[in-house]
Amino acid sequence: MDFLDKLISVGIAINSVVDLEELLDLILQKARDLSGADAGSIYLVKDKELVFFAAQNDTLEKRLGKEEVKNLFRNFSLSLDKSSVAGYVAVTGEVLNIENVYENSQHDFWAHKQWDRANNYRSKSMLVFPLTTPKQEVVGVIQLINAKENGQIVPFKQSFVNIMPYFAAQAAVAIVNARLYHEVEASHLDTVFRLGVAAEYRDKETAFHIKRVAKMAVVFGQELGFSKQALHNLYWSVAMHDVGKLGVPDSILNKPGPLTDQERAIMQQHTLIGGYILRNARSELLQDAQIVALTHHEKYDGTGYPAQLKGESIPLIGRIAGIVDVFDALSSVRVYKPPFSEEKVRKIMLEGKGTHFDPDLIDILLENWDKFWDIRQKYQDGQKISEKHWVPQRLCWEELWQEIKQNQANWTPKVKNSDLVKW
Amino acid sequence: MDFLDKLISVGIAINSVVDLEELLDLILQKARDLSGADAGSIYLVKDKELVFFAAQNDTLEKRLGKEEVKNLFRNFSLSLDKSSVAGYVAVTGEVLNIENVYENSQHDFWAHKQWDRANNYRSKSMLVFPLTTPKQEVVGVIQLINAKENGQIVPFKQSFVNIMPYFAAQAAVAIVNARLYHEVEASHLDTVFRLGVAAEYRDKETAFHIKRVAKMAVVFGQELGFSKQALHNLYWSVAMHDVGKLGVPDSILNKPGPLTDQERAIMQQHTLIGGYILRNARSELLQDAQIVALTHHEKYDGTGYPAQLKGESIPLIGRIAGIVDVFDALSSVRVYKPPFSEEKVRKIMLEGKGTHFDPDLIDILLENWDKFWDIRQKYQDGQKISEKHWVPQRLCWEELWQEIKQNQANWTPKVKNSDLVKW
Repeated sequence: MDFLDKLISVGIAINSVVDLEELLDLILQKARDLSGADAGSIYLVKDKELVFFAAQNDTLEKRLGKEEVKNLFRNFSLSLDKSSVAGYVAVTGEVLNIENVYENSQHDFWAHKQWDRANNYRSKSMLVFPLTTPKQEVVGVIQLINAKENGQIVPFKQSFVNIMPYFAAQAAVAIVNARLYHEVEASHLDTVFRLGVAAEYRDKETAFHIKRVAKMAVVFGQELGFSKQALHNLYWSVAMHDVGKLGVPDSILNKPGPLTDQERAIMQQHTLIGGYILRNARSELLQDAQIVALTHHEKYDGTGYPAQLKGESIPLIGRIAGIVDVFDALSSVRVYKPPFSEEKVRKIMLEGKGTHFDPDLIDILLENWDKFWDIRQKYQDGQKISEKHWVPQRLCWEELWQEIKQNQANWTPKVKNSDLVKW
Repeated sequence: MDFLDKLISVGIAINSVVDLEELLDLILQKARDLSGADAGSIYLVKDKELVFFAAQNDTLEKRLGKEEVKNLFRNFSLSLDKSSVAGYVAVTGEVLNIENVYENSQHDFWAHKQWDRANNYRSKSMLVFPLTTPKQEVVGVIQLINAKENGQIVPFKQSFVNIMPYFAAQAAVAIVNARLYHEVEASHLDTVFRLGVAAEYRDKETAFHIKRVAKMAVVFGQELGFSKQALHNLYWSVAMHDVGKLGVPDSILNKPGPLTDQERAIMQQHTLIGGYILRNARSELLQDAQIVALTHHEKYDGTGYPAQLKGESIPLIGRIAGIVDVFDALSSVRVYKPPFSEEKVRKIMLEGKGTHFDPDLIDILLENWDKFWDIRQKYQDGQKISEKHWVPQRLCWEELWQEIKQNQANWTPKVKNSDLVKW
């Protein structure tokens, strides 16, 4: 009764953890609590392998520390077949309850014995069971080692083996769900990447500009104490600041000379177009990106565009994007200007303090000047910025082909890179 | 013991259902099984409301049928405050165990009594409890009515009330996870929509063309027996067939006269560019979209582009996209041609059987001609296709503004639609 009660609480607890690493640690901890195991590890099925994900070992942790025990397994994986005990369980779906590893002749514990030798540990009792979803999909394997009772190593109790299928199913479902959370995050980033690829076909500014301004924005975020998640969102939001240029006609976007008033007005609408492309987003990342797209040309004194916002009414991430965009433009070559010297860039940025730029952000820029300038130096455009768009640089048929034919075995390619046309 | 055992199985079962409607029906069924309730309903918290999502009622189902009982609640919602019993429970997080609804003076059962009267049902015992996640977030409310024992209505048993928090937590977690699954699906579609918005700024063909070809493709899918999911993917894949035009220069995309050989070669690369924008997708939807983008200009006899694929080696969805794209172009106005008559379109399509088009698909087209032609007639371009792009049609500041200021209360707008520039 108490056991089942515990099991229910465990199920609820693990189902509410969404970080995979944290979840696996919790599952392993709970499995050890319920079974009294000294040590244990979890492997997850990934492609054709069983990849190590979590390990705990009370005995070794006392000797080496928690982190060190985890390191013993880093980058460790087994092939998904019967050649190891964990593989055997993953493939067959069977549970192995071994009283004494070193006296068992039915299974091959080579991987395990090797590990014992390397780490001066001695495994005796072992319980290995598959993490099987209610849909009968094995997502991983738990290996529990050395059940203890009053300090003595004993075999794993049948009472625990009996409830284990419930525990394993709960754990498997939680793992699937944690991966789903990750999938949601990943697919929001996916939108960002694809819009980025599309924009690259149209925008003369290189991928390096994007990378630089995003990295510089993160320096501001760090100085301002942004959380890890906020820094992540800042990086990608700032990377997308010019996505609205997708909607500006080539004739204006690529015009070498100065723009007429009307052309400039159209050009400035890239902020609004960006706002449109990114509207109604449910993910925070894309919401932030919309704000940056809309406000990165506002100025602190209210003379910017599109909405002549002033001071703090410009969202902070918009102010940050604005400052790094100008900083990078000044220090880079443009069709209408050479790259300015470090001194000249510093002078212009300082002149804009409180008029063009948020004075506090200018202070941060000057205090951390070298960090920003280093980013400028590290991700150089080289000569690429002045080159004509040459298609294979962006459009490499062979490369694309390799990917496609993995899914479409019977396609026969007739295109070569040399057939592609530059423009 | 048996009760808890059941509870664990229930937890596992509900955690593996991802369709929200199916899940809520299952949760309600299990809650009724465990408690012996004759009837019940589930409300979920959505914005500032409690929205009805599931209902079961053995007595009424015998009288009216299952579907009819569901209909009694359709579009029903309560405000999220103490003015109803369900609202009270959602707001306070309390459990209400009522012996006799009509003799209870502590709570206001107006909504409930009204429902009883309208449906000729008599509620007596009632158990209302919140669906609270382990993070203490109330996601909804379950209302169970008329516990039965030997055909008699009795109060809900304390033994069930005791385990209910476990059940509620498991259910709440499952609901959150089902929404996550939905979120993953939704965010893949999100990518499609945003690329679509971006493409609209550049492509002269209207949104109506996109809608027509997607709907026509679905007719093929239906005739070929595609699953619901496959039809969904087909619709959106075909809608995106020209996404690669985002990468074609305006000078070629919008050229009124005939293209030179080199210009045509560049134009044809929109298939490859589409393949690039959509590459490496993990969602089936985007993978299908990539295939359509790459292959919708291949021809059955191997004379198409970009890869001169032949016959069945052109993926089916690419063959479908190719046929509907041409059908719609023939029957619509283009800068270089008037819309052709129904007879002329039919003649040209038939001429292409086995050369340009898959002969089997042409048979389907001819057999279902009216369905296709109706789609053509229903989604007319009107005069819009010949209009110049007028910005406010796509870029309406006031509309965008409304959305933004909900999140950014302190922004002061200075842009009016009349300030926007047409091009």
